[in-house]
Amino acid sequence: MADKEPLFARVALIGIGLIGSSLARAIRSKGLAGEIVVQTRRAETLRRAEELGLGDRYEADATEAVKGADLVVLSIPVGACGAVAAEIGPHLQKGAILTDVGSTKGTVVSDVAPYVPEGVHFIPGHPIAGTEHSGPDAGFASLFEGRWTILTPPPGADPAAITKLTEFWTACGSKVDTMDPDHHDRVLAIVSHLPHIIAYNIVGTADDLEAVSKSEVIKYSASGFRDFTRLAASDPTMWRDVCLSNRDAILEMLGRFSEDLASLQRAIRWGDGDKLFDMFTRTRAVRRSIIEAGQEVDAPDFGRHPEIARIKAEDGD
Amino acid sequence: MADKEPLFARVALIGIGLIGSSLARAIRSKGLAGEIVVQTRRAETLRRAEELGLGDRYEADATEAVKGADLVVLSIPVGACGAVAAEIGPHLQKGAILTDVGSTKGTVVSDVAPYVPEGVHFIPGHPIAGTEHSGPDAGFASLFEGRWTILTPPPGADPAAITKLTEFWTACGSKVDTMDPDHHDRVLAIVSHLPHIIAYNIVGTADDLEAVSKSEVIKYSASGFRDFTRLAASDPTMWRDVCLSNRDAILEMLGRFSEDLASLQRAIRWGDGDKLFDMFTRTRAVRRSIIEAGQEVDAPDFGRHPEIARIKAEDGD
Repeated sequence: MADKEPLFARVALIGIGLIGSSLARAIRSKGLAGEIVVQTRRAETLRRAEELGLGDRYEADATEAVKGADLVVLSIPVGACGAVAAEIGPHLQKGAILTDVGSTKGTVVSDVAPYVPEGVHFIPGHPIAGTEHSGPDAGFASLFEGRWTILTPPPGADPAAITKLTEFWTACGSKVDTMDPDHHDRVLAIVSHLPHIIAYNIVGTADDLEAVSKSEVIKYSASGFRDFTRLAASDPTMWRDVCLSNRDAILEMLGRFSEDLASLQRAIRWGDGDKLFDMFTRTRAVRRSIIEAGQEVDAPDFGRHPEIARIKAEDGD
Repeated sequence: MADKEPLFARVALIGIGLIGSSLARAIRSKGLAGEIVVQTRRAETLRRAEELGLGDRYEADATEAVKGADLVVLSIPVGACGAVAAEIGPHLQKGAILTDVGSTKGTVVSDVAPYVPEGVHFIPGHPIAGTEHSGPDAGFASLFEGRWTILTPPPGADPAAITKLTEFWTACGSKVDTMDPDHHDRVLAIVSHLPHIIAYNIVGTADDLEAVSKSEVIKYSASGFRDFTRLAASDPTMWRDVCLSNRDAILEMLGRFSEDLASLQRAIRWGDGDKLFDMFTRTRAVRRSIIEAGQEVDAPDFGRHPEIARIKAEDGD
């Protein structure tokens, strides 16, 4: 690594949560930057990032952090991107690439673009990777491996900048797609936003029951419920912002979901066994495809059973 | 093991799918039966059970299988229990325990009880354990370890028989609770049936979209969607029967879920960020409780990341 020129001379990471700190670790382990500058507003988080040795320099002030950086990554809740862009815009270096990792792209584009100066390449991005944990301790270098990152370059974006950012994500282990922001937001509404909202909702419903105690829900959760709690343990600020900023696509998906659920509910009420069997059969194929595409582990029960997890790990899967 | 009297002289396993075959393996490894008789109607499945060496004897005819057995376990879809009980009833040995592993208890009691002869102890049961896989190959001996089994003994059931069945499940690694069938069905409606129905439904909704392709759903599924596909890959016959036999409790839970979802949807439509934040915050505590209760792994992303899974396995978690 040492004798190879890094991809970027200086990367400024604005925000150092799960994604930011995973990026810091990946950049370090792959030697992708001459210098990593870590910025976050909360003093406690910045101190923790320093303890973890995530960067080469630590800044509380975003304008200081971005000075002289040839890559700036916003890894903050999407609702905060506009204000941060307004703050750092005048301090961005000519020729720098400005990107983000937000789960919605339409509002990020409209919030951030007005503050991007001439000569800075703004190329929004979204790595489709994560866990239910947040904060600088939660990150790990292999988070992006085998996952997809979607870039949504605006019309007329510099092809060289797109190529360089693609190279960066590829070096982090990710596969890269490009699409327009609206399509991104519609795709994510179904594959990510709706599942999280449904998960939050069902956990809330269970928590409210009078006839079934909380301790019963917890004891017997292995029968299905616990799978939803992983998503429902995700960062509330991030998900509030996602709901607010991808409202239209989410409402459309919620409408379709509720319509389908009403139909399923009717089949249950009227005892339509054939319809239920058909509905419960077609969905198996989807899971097989996900496993074949390498986006899921094929261990039963996600390999939760210690015995199976151990065998899998020894096999090197 | 060899010099210790087994708990049962002869166990007849009626059905040899995920649960039946896991029981066969657990019984064998713990030495809980003098003889294991495996019965299933499908010739192919019976042959496979024999290849796997799951029993000591293999029968296609249930009436033959139960003769002389002091424990008979029905591990078949709940919808099939009544007909099988009618068939085997006259052949059950006096003093035998008859139990099942069905996910609903109310209809099993009403379907099976009329065929249970005087002197046979009918004690319905439900191990809260499983994976998304089915068939005799899917089972494993440790499936019940650390999980709960709920028994729903009818009023006046023989205490000695309850104790013996409790001992049996405990020896299989399970913890045992007893409750009445109606309460069981209500608890399971929220912790298991509703999650499965919701998962089937969302996978169906995604599969129907015109604006987002199937390949996009699959590629980007790691962002939330894939967690639902595990449940939605479960056995369709089993889940059809669950829906038909626990209709009232499921409809009640679906009603509550939809009501809550409508309220959440309204908060999204009107941009009520504070309400969304509150809803998304309270659900984290539920997950923490499930992990503390040992009903969930605490690895991020269910330990799907190979690097983390390996570290966890080495730690012996």
